[in-house]
Formats: sequence, C-alpha cells, structure tokens
Amino acid sequence: MTKVVGCELCELAPSSKVVANDKFAVILVDDANYPGFARVTWNEHVREMSDLPDADRLLVNDAVWKVEQALREVMQPLKVNLASLGNVVPHLHWHLIPRFADDAHFPAPVWASAARETDPAVLEGRRALLPQLKQAIERKFANR
Amino acid sequence: MTKVVGCELCELAPSSKVVANDKFAVILVDDANYPGFARVTWNEHVREMSDLPDADRLLVNDAVWKVEQALREVMQPLKVNLASLGNVVPHLHWHLIPRFADDAHFPAPVWASAARETDPAVLEGRRALLPQLKQAIERKFANR
Repeated sequence: MTKVVGCELCELAPSSKVVANDKFAVILVDDANYPGFARVTWNEHVREMSDLPDADRLLVNDAVWKVEQALREVMQPLKVNLASLGNVVPHLHWHLIPRFADDAHFPAPVWASAARETDPAVLEGRRALLPQLKQAIERKFANR
Repeated sequence: MTKVVGCELCELAPSSKVVANDKFAVILVDDANYPGFARVTWNEHVREMSDLPDADRLLVNDAVWKVEQALREVMQPLKVNLASLGNVVPHLHWHLIPRFADDAHFPAPVWASAARETDPAVLEGRRALLPQLKQAIERKFANR
C-alpha cells in the first residue's frame, strides 16, 4: 500500500482505531466540544471519493452509514453532520459529528466561529456515553 | 409526498434544477465566491441519510458521485468538499464544493471565516465554465 510520509492519516496509530480492517478504520475523535465526533478514514492515500473503484466507494458509504446509525442510537443527536473535506489532509476521510441545539456552534457548521459554551455537565453526560458508542460501532461492523 | 410548509427545500423552484426526477434534484448554487457549488437535494422531507431505505441511500450516493465527477472534469478543482449538514434546513441535501488554493477560505472549510478575496478575473474564468458544467451534469444523469 502506498504510504505518504508526513500524512497523518497514512500514519494513524492502530491504538486510536475503534474498527480497523484492510480497507478503512473508524476512530473516535477527542474533541472537547463534540463527544461522539467520529471519523471513517480510508487506509490507502486516496484523494477523492471519485478516485475509488465502485466497490470501494460503496464500502465507504456503508461504513459512514453504519457509524451514523450507531451515533444516532447512542448519542441521540438533534442532527448528524457528515463531511468529506480533506483540504488540509488530502487523504480520504469522513467526519461524522453528532449535533445538539446547545453545542458550541449550532446551527452553524462546527468550522464556523463558536456561538456559545456548552454546559460542562451536559458535555460530561455526553462523554459518559462514549464507551457505549464504541461498543455500538463495533457491533455494526461485527458481521463483516 | 410529504411537504413541510416553510421548508425551502420542499419548495425548491423547478427552474433552479439542473437535474430533476421523482427522487432528487441537482442544482447549481449561485455563490459569488464558489462558481460550481452544487447541491443534491432529496425530494422527500427526510432528515438523515440513515432515515432512507437502502436503495434510496445508494441513489443519493450515486448522484453525489456523478456530480463530483462532473465537477472534477469541468472545474478541475484542487479538492472537492462534500457535506450533508442540515442544521438550518433539516431536509436531506448534499453540498458539493469545488475548492481551489486561491478561493476565499482555502484550506479552511467554506463555513469558516474568509481568508482572502479571490482575483475577480479568476472567479470570472470559473463562472465562464458553468454552462459546460451544467451540460456535464446533465450528461451524467442522461442514462438513468
């Protein structure tokens, strides 16, 4: 597999992965404002979704869809945000972000200026769901 | 089909659509900084990708993928950004944004604070590609 030196997604630590197989990984991002922020990262250093062969593209879509389901089941967000940007790290990856009316940016995207601080107790309550989220994600991929 | 009064995507004007069928539409967004900014909007007022039956989810993915291909062929962006957010309008839609190193926000997402003004002549050159982009998108969906 082609590895690009200096690409942080080519060099993703195995310990950070909730799910890992020969094609992609699922990780939970440690973001203080967004407990449950997850990423699906393609293993190979591929730039765009349309650079993937059809079967692989469908595999990515399926992975994103499974993680979205796990996020909804456990975190019960008001909305899920999905994005594949890659302007800074042009190695295919998807952001999945559970959004709430009281989160730091709602209703703006998380990349806009922050609108508020979320009650720390509320954030703590969401963080407490992470072990359950990790298990839910693992279950979604257990039948592959 | 369920229509939600006041939802701008339930009430999308037919004239704005580059592609329209019984399931979804493709539109080109009139954004001064981002010629080629496109959206795939689901016709039905559905909130999340994971609310769709499998066949419809794959139809959305296929539509996004086709529009991405057309964007790359005609606009030749440095990167394509894909996002389904829906915090403001919780009616399923995908943003497809061709990104360039000299665009207003690069490498930040387009929802961050602007970093610069793009040379008006460069933006004009990109806008001049829109008729060709429209045709390329139409061709991608011509065989359905």
